[in-house]
Amino acid sequence: MTVTDHRETLRSAYRQVRSTTTRLCEPLSAEDYVVQSMPDASPAKWHLAHTTWFFETFLLQPECPGYKPYHPAFAVLFNSYYQGVGPQFSRPRRGLLSRPTVEEVLNYRREVDRAMDELFTDLPSDHFAEIAPRIELGINHEEQHQELLCTDLLHMFAQNPLDPEYQSSARWTPAKEHPFAWSPEFDAGLWEIGAQGSHFFFDNEGPRHKVYTEAFQLGNRLVTAGEYLNFINDGGYTTPSLWLSEGWAAVNTNGWSAPLYWNKSADGEWTMMTLMGRVPVDKHRPVCHVSHFEADAYARWAGARLPLESEWERAAHFIESQIQPQKTSIVGNFLDSGLLHPTSPSNSTSPIAQLFGDTWEWTASAYLPYPGFQPAAGAIGEYNGKFMSNQMVLRGGSCATPQRHIRTTYRNFFPSSARWQFAGIRLAK
Amino acid sequence: MTVTDHRETLRSAYRQVRSTTTRLCEPLSAEDYVVQSMPDASPAKWHLAHTTWFFETFLLQPECPGYKPYHPAFAVLFNSYYQGVGPQFSRPRRGLLSRPTVEEVLNYRREVDRAMDELFTDLPSDHFAEIAPRIELGINHEEQHQELLCTDLLHMFAQNPLDPEYQSSARWTPAKEHPFAWSPEFDAGLWEIGAQGSHFFFDNEGPRHKVYTEAFQLGNRLVTAGEYLNFINDGGYTTPSLWLSEGWAAVNTNGWSAPLYWNKSADGEWTMMTLMGRVPVDKHRPVCHVSHFEADAYARWAGARLPLESEWERAAHFIESQIQPQKTSIVGNFLDSGLLHPTSPSNSTSPIAQLFGDTWEWTASAYLPYPGFQPAAGAIGEYNGKFMSNQMVLRGGSCATPQRHIRTTYRNFFPSSARWQFAGIRLAK
Amino acid sequence: MTVTDHRETLRSAYRQVRSTTTRLCEPLSAEDYVVQSMPDASPAKWHLAHTTWFFETFLLQPECPGYKPYHPAFAVLFNSYYQGVGPQFSRPRRGLLSRPTVEEVLNYRREVDRAMDELFTDLPSDHFAEIAPRIELGINHEEQHQELLCTDLLHMFAQNPLDPEYQSSARWTPAKEHPFAWSPEFDAGLWEIGAQGSHFFFDNEGPRHKVYTEAFQLGNRLVTAGEYLNFINDGGYTTPSLWLSEGWAAVNTNGWSAPLYWNKSADGEWTMMTLMGRVPVDKHRPVCHVSHFEADAYARWAGARLPLESEWERAAHFIESQIQPQKTSIVGNFLDSGLLHPTSPSNSTSPIAQLFGDTWEWTASAYLPYPGFQPAAGAIGEYNGKFMSNQMVLRGGSCATPQRHIRTTYRNFFPSSARWQFAGIRLAK
Amino acid sequence: MTVTDHRETLRSAYRQVRSTTTRLCEPLSAEDYVVQSMPDASPAKWHLAHTTWFFETFLLQPECPGYKPYHPAFAVLFNSYYQGVGPQFSRPRRGLLSRPTVEEVLNYRREVDRAMDELFTDLPSDHFAEIAPRIELGINHEEQHQELLCTDLLHMFAQNPLDPEYQSSARWTPAKEHPFAWSPEFDAGLWEIGAQGSHFFFDNEGPRHKVYTEAFQLGNRLVTAGEYLNFINDGGYTTPSLWLSEGWAAVNTNGWSAPLYWNKSADGEWTMMTLMGRVPVDKHRPVCHVSHFEADAYARWAGARLPLESEWERAAHFIESQIQPQKTSIVGNFLDSGLLHPTSPSNSTSPIAQLFGDTWEWTASAYLPYPGFQPAAGAIGEYNGKFMSNQMVLRGGSCATPQRHIRTTYRNFFPSSARWQFAGIRLAK
Repeated sequence: MTVTDHRETLRSAYRQVRSTTTRLCEPLSAEDYVVQSMPDASPAKWHLAHTTWFFETFLLQPECPGYKPYHPAFAVLFNSYYQGVGPQFSRPRRGLLSRPTVEEVLNYRREVDRAMDELFTDLPSDHFAEIAPRIELGINHEEQHQELLCTDLLHMFAQNPLDPEYQSSARWTPAKEHPFAWSPEFDAGLWEIGAQGSHFFFDNEGPRHKVYTEAFQLGNRLVTAGEYLNFINDGGYTTPSLWLSEGWAAVNTNGWSAPLYWNKSADGEWTMMTLMGRVPVDKHRPVCHVSHFEADAYARWAGARLPLESEWERAAHFIESQIQPQKTSIVGNFLDSGLLHPTSPSNSTSPIAQLFGDTWEWTASAYLPYPGFQPAAGAIGEYNGKFMSNQMVLRGGSCATPQRHIRTTYRNFFPSSARWQFAGIRLAK
Repeated sequence: MTVTDHRETLRSAYRQVRSTTTRLCEPLSAEDYVVQSMPDASPAKWHLAHTTWFFETFLLQPECPGYKPYHPAFAVLFNSYYQGVGPQFSRPRRGLLSRPTVEEVLNYRREVDRAMDELFTDLPSDHFAEIAPRIELGINHEEQHQELLCTDLLHMFAQNPLDPEYQSSARWTPAKEHPFAWSPEFDAGLWEIGAQGSHFFFDNEGPRHKVYTEAFQLGNRLVTAGEYLNFINDGGYTTPSLWLSEGWAAVNTNGWSAPLYWNKSADGEWTMMTLMGRVPVDKHRPVCHVSHFEADAYARWAGARLPLESEWERAAHFIESQIQPQKTSIVGNFLDSGLLHPTSPSNSTSPIAQLFGDTWEWTASAYLPYPGFQPAAGAIGEYNGKFMSNQMVLRGGSCATPQRHIRTTYRNFFPSSARWQFAGIRLAK
Repeated sequence: MTVTDHRETLRSAYRQVRSTTTRLCEPLSAEDYVVQSMPDASPAKWHLAHTTWFFETFLLQPECPGYKPYHPAFAVLFNSYYQGVGPQFSRPRRGLLSRPTVEEVLNYRREVDRAMDELFTDLPSDHFAEIAPRIELGINHEEQHQELLCTDLLHMFAQNPLDPEYQSSARWTPAKEHPFAWSPEFDAGLWEIGAQGSHFFFDNEGPRHKVYTEAFQLGNRLVTAGEYLNFINDGGYTTPSLWLSEGWAAVNTNGWSAPLYWNKSADGEWTMMTLMGRVPVDKHRPVCHVSHFEADAYARWAGARLPLESEWERAAHFIESQIQPQKTSIVGNFLDSGLLHPTSPSNSTSPIAQLFGDTWEWTASAYLPYPGFQPAAGAIGEYNGKFMSNQMVLRGGSCATPQRHIRTTYRNFFPSSARWQFAGIRLAK
Repeated sequence: MTVTDHRETLRSAYRQVRSTTTRLCEPLSAEDYVVQSMPDASPAKWHLAHTTWFFETFLLQPECPGYKPYHPAFAVLFNSYYQGVGPQFSRPRRGLLSRPTVEEVLNYRREVDRAMDELFTDLPSDHFAEIAPRIELGINHEEQHQELLCTDLLHMFAQNPLDPEYQSSARWTPAKEHPFAWSPEFDAGLWEIGAQGSHFFFDNEGPRHKVYTEAFQLGNRLVTAGEYLNFINDGGYTTPSLWLSEGWAAVNTNGWSAPLYWNKSADGEWTMMTLMGRVPVDKHRPVCHVSHFEADAYARWAGARLPLESEWERAAHFIESQIQPQKTSIVGNFLDSGLLHPTSPSNSTSPIAQLFGDTWEWTASAYLPYPGFQPAAGAIGEYNGKFMSNQMVLRGGSCATPQRHIRTTYRNFFPSSARWQFAGIRLAK
């Protein structure tokens, strides 16, 4: 690709990610942008502003000498956690900010987009080549916040007894059954995992390195809500021997008796809150909004276990190279489908369906640095490395992940108790 | 007054209180209506809806047979604490509700106002006479929420580093000095306090009863910010012997070193957040946003004490009957002035100025039932009586209290640690 | 009384209070002295040392020039809350101190007693007369800690599934019924309450002052456990309209469904933990270990109310002067009886039995300063005044109060939610 | 080894571990046995009883038909966390139990020891062979509690301003310097780690399995207190870029500015609390009582990293097989030395000294199951597996670990924030 082509490709990707973010907000009323429904979630308005702040802080300010920050206070208000850039407004207090208004934030976005467009146009090639990786990082960063926008909106609406619908419940249809089977066995052996090369990937995906993996099999699809109901009805949430000690404590402290957003009516019917409002639990769709503790307990109950991230990546590489070699991009139920909920792979003939999309898959691997991992220099180096403690790896993306964003080597991570992401269960043995 | 006159007087008062509430919200953006900045505060939207719910629940539903509730979920969403009426949405979670939107809430208000107007028109006289006290209660209830709307908005804006202005800071002007003096001495004696008669008053203001009061004097005005600065500069916040034990714990736990909303800049200048945004601390205006603990410690430092509520009421009665016998209504800096901040009584010639308006005055009296107190029957009886524990009485109203709302016998009450009300200090000895 | 007589009377009282405290500890194993079962309670060892520290700090150190503190660290370790004397070891951490051992603490007591005995012997009369009030205060202080020793030991043993017995359960016998009646009516009128004179009383008992009291009647005895069971069985703990708002929150937050230390067995029998171990709930004995919230809710359920402290004191004065004028000291079931649990006044012919002893009686009065109250100068002035916020007054002493300690004017005080004291219910109307 | 030999070997090991535990308690006063200084620690009395409960519950009760439990309540009181065996007394409340007394607990130990001795004598060979692994587990379990006894006593004494000495501070002597160097490089390669065979090991140490390890080097000794002081003085605790995000939060929340038990005096001298009381920080001894967060931050500051557990085990195997092939047991500063504090390896010629003993070494590996891990069946299976979340692996044993207890394959584990263990730092690169 020529430098000019690269520049235009990136400009196009930039424009697309920016317009997708605002489009995702179109169904919202001004009031919906403000609420922070828990410390881990952020208001929609904050996502809109923070992603903009990223481009302003890491591109416009250092690279465009004449650039004047849109508002002096935004540097603190919309910094998430970059200590190297300065102080941050207290995270659990993001929902206390009625100002700037949505209109002002959208204006902030427009101003930064205008300045970025000038940067795309005006920057000399050498300079542009130098900063292109940072632009790509900003785009990927905003893609991540598109997913969080969805999960945070769902969490907010789920607190509301009015069961608001982000999009019409008329979109909801029951899914078809896809029978469970174990995949063919993968042989034991030394294998390389992790990213390398010139395409974009996060620092935590590398370096590429060798791992030894025992022989294993994966489930041919995600665990379904119907299977999970069997676990519930079999006393899964009341049997301590199925749980990690911390998981059992979480069950009891939080009163968990089903996935997040599930409710059982007085007459025994299960419903769940989704971005389409409250709908019946669908047995054939993947269970999601479970914690790592629940995924682990379910797997133990089912006589299986969760996959290691190295197993998952090996399987994903196999699927990519053997099953779908003709595909130029990853196939699955992503944000792009607009469904915004996992569904059944009923039409798939893959021996391991749903590896990508639908729900993130909790692995049995702690989120730790790969051998030889080095974070990037400067504040941008705070992106991934400093979170490498007490979190578990999830793989494969979800129905709220932009399709462009996911990779075979992609490592997502959340604490074992997190439930508000679209996270589900893949069995291994 | 004839029944018809009474009906029209009440209809007029109803219309006025309702329009005042919405007018108070005019400077707000949709986003400002949503935020709950602490568990004790409520979103503006909630105040708008809850005051409406009060009329719907206690008047339209029981008295208008054909009345259909505006929305079935609002009965729970907008019930504050009336156990007798049913369950309540969790108070600290009011800020999680982006829906109903402001527009829907305003529509709710309009619908209830329309139905109330029909009630005013259609109800037979006997029936109307029976429920008129409840309408008057509803009006007074909404007046209380007008004050809370102001204090809660100020608290929310004060969390925001952008220092938003509810109204223009151009309104801010320095106040003039009013020298301190002690009032003439009130003799010891047996005295009657508390409300009785046919005018409206809250159940907690009665019954009228005898109290014996020792001789006393009051300060001729509220304690000023300048006087309070002397207390600060004299080590008031670091001297345990000035404080109640619980107060000293509050100072240390919360890190108090000045009234709420005060900030000291790097160069030693004090500013404070007001409904006009951030302004300099004005030495001649009353200090406010202090807790009972701070008021009590200040008084001890000043070699004085806080007044008893019986002393306060005796003095207020004296002012009313001796000093301003010609006045038909209470005079002071109330919500109606639009100032929304306490000011100096520099033009007053009263021996005890500012008894009404400017700031509530913390008394040395615990909020307890008067002898023979009986709460009203039914859910409305939960209005005052059930809060008679661990709160202190405040008297006189503030710059955010509607003038129509206050009375000589009026008893306000807050916990000793509350600071977000317009509460200040009157000395006694 | 001559000065010498006074000196010997005080020496005798000193010796008695000191030996009573250690005698109260005789049933304890070394392990029992160490535990702090909640932040409000203290280890027995701490009570032994702190009462000793009081004499050392406020008498030996300032008055005996050659006196060398027993241990330099004890000044901090055994200071309870006297800011004027210096820092304190963190109260909730008192149970973390295995050292000094019990033996060392008893030695500390012996050394201070020896030095105090010298002080009694050697001090010139003038000097002695000056400090005698402080010695009397120290004795009264230790009497208070004798009661706390009992209540704190009971609380500790109640945490232990082994139900340890402080004294033998063989002492336990059922009590006889004493029928309920209302006392004769006390007329409305102006009345003087509060202490004055040359006998010992705490600063918070004065000054003597006038109060106006409406006509009232008191219950002829304390509310019994049997009556309280009726309240429980009638849904007392599940009916919000019976409770103050804070009380209802306490019921739900803490899961209260009966007095502290009561348990209901699988077959419906009620037992309770006492200093005699676990025994059946006895219907004819007074209910105790209830909070002010429970006392208030019970009274409301019973169609009555709690007495004001002025009413209580008026009744007590009446009993003293009219009913028992021949008595030279207060009669009741006190610590001195060794029973250590309230019992029935079945043999009493008093129109108002049990005013003294058995259980403290929660009043409807907040603990606030009497008009003109002035705390003593210096650190000793921290004794009472600084606790005058958010507590309720209790009157009359309990089965764990030394008989010598109580007075008609005595004001005890605890927060509304405190349950571990021997506190019960007297009705008024 | 013949069955009879095995029986006598085990009986001897049993007797030794039991007598060592009680001998470790000899310096204690009765009061020292009672205190629980934090929820993670247990009273000495509880350790004595719980280790006894283990033999009673898992051996005497199931295997000796006539055995009658010593006390019916002990099954609950002294169960730590075995859900399969029944309920447990609340862990953070262990310090509330003054009873049973130390004497009763020692009697409990004697009775169980007597019954165990009969079991050793009487059990038929087949039966004995079947349960011998459980006896061995019980012995190892008690060895673990010997270490915890030391760490919990130190934590308790460290709360006490009297700085109690568990053993005489006269034992304290400065250590000699041992210069730092990197070990020879270990080649990259596929390697087997984990335990297998017939000797005792915990379930979490197996199965033996292959891991691929990149080339690496280890520090030749533990990081010293002097080196750690350089980190402190270089602003280690105030530089966020050195810390994991959670670690930085821990620093700020807990106010960490040095290892646990370190104090800086007014004149800048560092002291630390040890089992010999308060002593000066010794530059040449290993730093210990640091969290994983601190170990990780230190390593980053030093331009290195922490070792993986696979690297550590490879190095340990190398030392065992190449450097000390003649040794029949592991050499190091263990509990058996009686020093009870880490010291310098000044006399060692090993290229990697102190791998065993002195301090546990935090690794960069999360505590997770080895491939194919299966917990034991029944309640004993709760020993290790259920704690495999959010903990980090430590290797090598400490100065409080019994020498008999440690192995090359031994995996200890604690949360990243734990500091009260003897845990230190080994660098890797």
